[in-house]
Amino acid sequence: MQRLYLEDLSIGQKFASRSQTIDAEAIKAYAREFDPQPFHLAEDEAKKSLFGGLAASGWHTASLTMSLIVESVPLAGGVIGTGGELAWPRPTRPGDTLRVVTEVLEITPSRSRPDRGMIIMCSTTLNQHEEAVQVFTPKVVVQRRQLGA
Amino acid sequence: MQRLYLEDLSIGQKFASRSQTIDAEAIKAYAREFDPQPFHLAEDEAKKSLFGGLAASGWHTASLTMSLIVESVPLAGGVIGTGGELAWPRPTRPGDTLRVVTEVLEITPSRSRPDRGMIIMCSTTLNQHEEAVQVFTPKVVVQRRQLGA
Repeated sequence: MQRLYLEDLSIGQKFASRSQTIDAEAIKAYAREFDPQPFHLAEDEAKKSLFGGLAASGWHTASLTMSLIVESVPLAGGVIGTGGELAWPRPTRPGDTLRVVTEVLEITPSRSRPDRGMIIMCSTTLNQHEEAVQVFTPKVVVQRRQLGA
Repeated sequence: MQRLYLEDLSIGQKFASRSQTIDAEAIKAYAREFDPQPFHLAEDEAKKSLFGGLAASGWHTASLTMSLIVESVPLAGGVIGTGGELAWPRPTRPGDTLRVVTEVLEITPSRSRPDRGMIIMCSTTLNQHEEAVQVFTPKVVVQRRQLGA
């Protein structure tokens, strides 16, 4: 896969990931380590919660999303974000098949560092019904081509 | 630990977590599963990257932060966020000891649902030098006390 530098990117450019299915065991395993709340751990407790059934931790959705972004957004120097707006419009459920579509929204060369720039991208994580389970709009550092290289 | 309802919260109220140390093995294990980029997986490659040395995935910092929030913010019904602004001002490094301070910023009862409300809180993840490695400002759904209960 060709690695992309700041000069290779354009506003509106899109990257699509492969799909990945998440099962109840994976949801519970992540939750045991990082988000041990009843609605992420046990079907019975989840039914009584606001979620009305087992739901993945938002951070699990975010982590899976990152694994799909790493494969699908081939930035030179890697995908290094400094943060951004994160939203979980609906939960990820057992059996959901997720994929991520990433769009380039803004491209800003650094004024002080000629070797890099900053982009804002929007990564939308969709389930099998084409509903967004996560929208993340990070600032990402991107390398520029080295002059003379 | 006493579980807190919307009526129990006040603007400026703070919650402090315990500390947790993160080592290189944990950084690499998380990265292998969710963010397999060289600067999260191998010291040598990390030295050549923007990070200048092994750094945890921001999503690993976020996941650890959530585990500390679950222990330290005792909301009735659990901590259920719908998203918010997320920032990683600096990376988490091997050997860092993290703790999370959470502050209540806004409290808004729901107009349509008398059983709940929304708060905005700010969870700052600090390392052993009292430097912020993550700042997350989510909207969180909080239960109200049931009238007559």
